Amino acid sequence: MSRWKPDAEGRLISAALTLFDEQGYEETTVAEIAQAAGLTKRTFFRYFSDKREVLFSGSHELERRWLEGMADAATDASPLAVVLAGLDPVAEMFVERHAFARVRSGIIAANPELQERELIKLQNLAGAIKAALRDRGVSLNAAILAAQAGVTVFHVAFARWVEQNDPTAFRRLMHESLEELRSVTAA
Amino acid sequence: MSRWKPDAEGRLISAALTLFDEQGYEETTVAEIAQAAGLTKRTFFRYFSDKREVLFSGSHELERRWLEGMADAATDASPLAVVLAGLDPVAEMFVERHAFARVRSGIIAANPELQERELIKLQNLAGAIKAALRDRGVSLNAAILAAQAGVTVFHVAFARWVEQNDPTAFRRLMHESLEELRSVTAA
Repeated sequence: MSRWKPDAEGRLISAALTLFDEQGYEETTVAEIAQAAGLTKRTFFRYFSDKREVLFSGSHELERRWLEGMADAATDASPLAVVLAGLDPVAEMFVERHAFARVRSGIIAANPELQERELIKLQNLAGAIKAALRDRGVSLNAAILAAQAGVTVFHVAFARWVEQNDPTAFRRLMHESLEELRSVTAA
Repeated sequence: MSRWKPDAEGRLISAALTLFDEQGYEETTVAEIAQAAGLTKRTFFRYFSDKREVLFSGSHELERRWLEGMADAATDASPLAVVLAGLDPVAEMFVERHAFARVRSGIIAANPELQERELIKLQNLAGAIKAALRDRGVSLNAAILAAQAGVTVFHVAFARWVEQNDPTAFRRLMHESLEELRSVTAA
């Protein structure tokens, strides 16, 4: 009989983050994570290829929510307005993940290989946003520039969000970051 | 006696690009590159850790020129104007590298691992630009946003430059890309 339980993935993520935070990312093994979650290593590997992927398990949901939000934007919205519409469902998802995000950011900041992985995930996200804009008929250059602007606004807002204490602040920080980008790029 | 000659590095780069273009990147060995340049493998490894690094050998000069151009910007220039000042010496450097850049872009576009490497190099460049802005007293958020905007403008202009036939077009394409970014981010 399998030891699978409905929220096995969530328990593994939670156990991993607790261990990473308490004893360090490098020092934590998959066996320890599985044990702390009351599961087997085999179950762990059903959800994640390695412990690194636990840190990036949210990236699919981030992309899914972002693209869903874009799909809801008005047909006559500007390319950047479409991209930013994707950040509404993202902000919602983030409220309850603040503690997780703070621990995760500290781990990534201390590990250059994880920083590279994070950059690649962000650029993959920009690529998916660009493709969604292209599907809406946006020109290639405008799609690249709007996608990159949106991901930059997200990245800056996210970094500020994990540094402060209010889990609900993401939307406000995102608008501040957008206004700063507008001010920086104004002629 | 060493077989080192003044332009050994340049000859290795040129030989490598010719071979990559003619017979494919994956199929080309370090021994073949060294032989085509009239040098030994040992000399190759004095300049490059592996064949991949030949493709990224220009990134240090790109960064050096970009930062030098920024250092020449007026003290009261806006953060983005400072970043863009760095693109003048970059545009100069690019004129005679058009053929190289076109071959290189084709190789990178065909190889996901090289694409990741390229993204990381670009983000390292954005990090260096951000640090130079911080040294000029620019706030952290403005420095991040201006650096990212500058690298995005560069990236879009570069992609268009390698796709067209005029080696001197980089500066014009860069200005077009900047105007498009301004139009995309305008409220």
